[in-house]
Amino acid sequence: VKRTSREIRTANRYRVLRQAIADSPVSRPRLAEATGLSTATVATLVGELAGAGMLVDAGFEDSGGGRPRGLVAVNPDGGALIGVDVAETYVHAGIYDLAWTPLARTERALRPMDSTPERVARAIGAAVRAVAGHHAAAGRPVIGAGVSVPGVVDREAGVSVFAPNWGWQDVPLLRLLAERLPYRLFLDNPLHACLTAELWSGAARGRDDAVVINLGTGVGAGLALGGELHRGVSNSAGEWGHTMLVLDGRLCHCGRHGCVETYVGAPGIVQSLRELSPLSPLLHPEDQTETIAELARACRLGDPVAAKAVRETASYLGAAVADLVNLLDPEIVVLSGWVARRLGTPLLRQVRQSVAQHALRRTPGSPEIVLSPLGANPVSLGSATFALEGVLATVGQRRPGRAS
Amino acid sequence: VKRTSREIRTANRYRVLRQAIADSPVSRPRLAEATGLSTATVATLVGELAGAGMLVDAGFEDSGGGRPRGLVAVNPDGGALIGVDVAETYVHAGIYDLAWTPLARTERALRPMDSTPERVARAIGAAVRAVAGHHAAAGRPVIGAGVSVPGVVDREAGVSVFAPNWGWQDVPLLRLLAERLPYRLFLDNPLHACLTAELWSGAARGRDDAVVINLGTGVGAGLALGGELHRGVSNSAGEWGHTMLVLDGRLCHCGRHGCVETYVGAPGIVQSLRELSPLSPLLHPEDQTETIAELARACRLGDPVAAKAVRETASYLGAAVADLVNLLDPEIVVLSGWVARRLGTPLLRQVRQSVAQHALRRTPGSPEIVLSPLGANPVSLGSATFALEGVLATVGQRRPGRAS
Repeated sequence: VKRTSREIRTANRYRVLRQAIADSPVSRPRLAEATGLSTATVATLVGELAGAGMLVDAGFEDSGGGRPRGLVAVNPDGGALIGVDVAETYVHAGIYDLAWTPLARTERALRPMDSTPERVARAIGAAVRAVAGHHAAAGRPVIGAGVSVPGVVDREAGVSVFAPNWGWQDVPLLRLLAERLPYRLFLDNPLHACLTAELWSGAARGRDDAVVINLGTGVGAGLALGGELHRGVSNSAGEWGHTMLVLDGRLCHCGRHGCVETYVGAPGIVQSLRELSPLSPLLHPEDQTETIAELARACRLGDPVAAKAVRETASYLGAAVADLVNLLDPEIVVLSGWVARRLGTPLLRQVRQSVAQHALRRTPGSPEIVLSPLGANPVSLGSATFALEGVLATVGQRRPGRAS
Repeated sequence: VKRTSREIRTANRYRVLRQAIADSPVSRPRLAEATGLSTATVATLVGELAGAGMLVDAGFEDSGGGRPRGLVAVNPDGGALIGVDVAETYVHAGIYDLAWTPLARTERALRPMDSTPERVARAIGAAVRAVAGHHAAAGRPVIGAGVSVPGVVDREAGVSVFAPNWGWQDVPLLRLLAERLPYRLFLDNPLHACLTAELWSGAARGRDDAVVINLGTGVGAGLALGGELHRGVSNSAGEWGHTMLVLDGRLCHCGRHGCVETYVGAPGIVQSLRELSPLSPLLHPEDQTETIAELARACRLGDPVAAKAVRETASYLGAAVADLVNLLDPEIVVLSGWVARRLGTPLLRQVRQSVAQHALRRTPGSPEIVLSPLGANPVSLGSATFALEGVLATVGQRRPGRAS
């Protein structure tokens, strides 16, 4: 219960800018109405955001005879934001303007031998410089860069506390990056990135309570409660992939048996397919990405084995999502991550059925369950978004180093 | 993201009064420091609470030579609050002063034949009148009464939306009660009551993120996130008892198999004991309360079957709590409810071990896991507490009916 006035003010700044980006051009009274803040508070915050070059005046609203109301709009050129998604096998970076339009992106493979902190930092540095230097992005000042790495992250300290797949413990990643990059840098994990992206520009915008299920090689859940990311006391909330789904079930790399991830993560789906049809031509040994893509294609074409594998996956996923729905009672559940994007509507339709079957009595159709509307890399977009949040925490303050 | 200025103000009022009750007598600057609010906000809210008779001046603090700082304290006699716990088999009511001292309590059995809305309302009415009329409580104005009923509750409308054990659907309980009782009435469910009690006067006070596990005949989890109760979009967050723990496991009354409740609720524990030792003298047919009490006694005396039954229960509970910890990353987990109180320390010790075994890597000893420090009926105390929250939502406003 130690939320300070400053934290509340920062959260209000998020709301106002988020709403302004969604609604531009927009009047101050309309912003007040949409955010639930007082008009005085909105006026102050709009002033700060305009001072930082993020909002600009945008003419007047036709008020039908009364005094015309001034409009403000987001200034897309007020700054560029970089987001980096560092996964086990690649580094992806994107650069975005303030209206979240992607200006450039890059992706490079990360080989297992490249997973030392020094080499990962070098790969991130190269990716960031590539997008920052892209001609489409040129000329816009980069106001911040966000980096997402898997595992447990201490975002205040900029440290990767624990990244089991790389054997990292307490790696001061932001310090390594600060030697290479001249930008304000922010660190968090992919679950928090995905959730932040959905809150600012995706399916969770304007929702109080939302769950974003991230389906990839790993599996997790970003939680928005009260319209804000729930981080937990050590910034590691969301480890839903290691919720027990099947007692004494499949062995998980975490050491337990029957975790959700072993059934609905990419390797788990591949295993289900292999168990259904050990010689299936859909199976691409050593290439789970291609196997999932083939599975999705075959399912759309009516292949019965593929349909059954997707149905089984949806049934596990629905049972697990129903537990989240019973626990958290959210307005909306968003299926995100590359596996959800690949399997798409057939997965969505069957997850809806499975959740309805498993959830306790609710209003029909509640909660909404949707596919993420965000593009190819929501983690990069989300990393750029949490960088913006970091920058907003200090808008209107004197910069360190200036005389006070 | 529609939290209005008024809701924020109400939440701030909760914080200030909660802190003042914990710290009385206390200076305004100390309240500001502890709540993270500005001194100006605290001064305004203290003024409102004093105007409502809840806080009073309490002399001056020795400031070591500087200007003496005025102290405020909770006024225990500023009002009395009634809390009612309506369970499947009984109605319990308690009356409390503003410092949460219990002044009187009463309990009466609720037979299955008494479970019509009219009869339950009559039983609640009788219980409330009994505690309100108790000599220890006499003379204090009752400022609100909270009623907790199992199931899904629409608190705004005062309606029990769904109470499966009674076959209730959309019962306008507060309207039935308003015909009988002259108090401001508030309705919610036992999970939310327990959590609210722990937040105001129990183990979750001052914590941002807390989970209160309620173990009784039914099982659920109250969630405090960001220092406030998480209700969910239809006020039914916390249905953790129906999280799947064992695929194809024990049949639950909800229709699914393997729910947490079927292993760690009182009937589930009795079943585990019966499976271990079908002729155990600890088993009291038709009396689960007595069976759990006997089990607890035998476990403390070193009976090996009893110890094994508690160990099994703790193992299931620990696995399920670990999932909550992985998902929510709370500061503290509180074990509450009559089953937790009965089984006490042996259960607690083994749950701690089981959680440590199942949770993903964390700081050792994190989160804290404790038994509820609250007395005999935390649900009644919590119902009185949510009644106080309801009253605080309108402190400082003109009453309806007065000229404006």
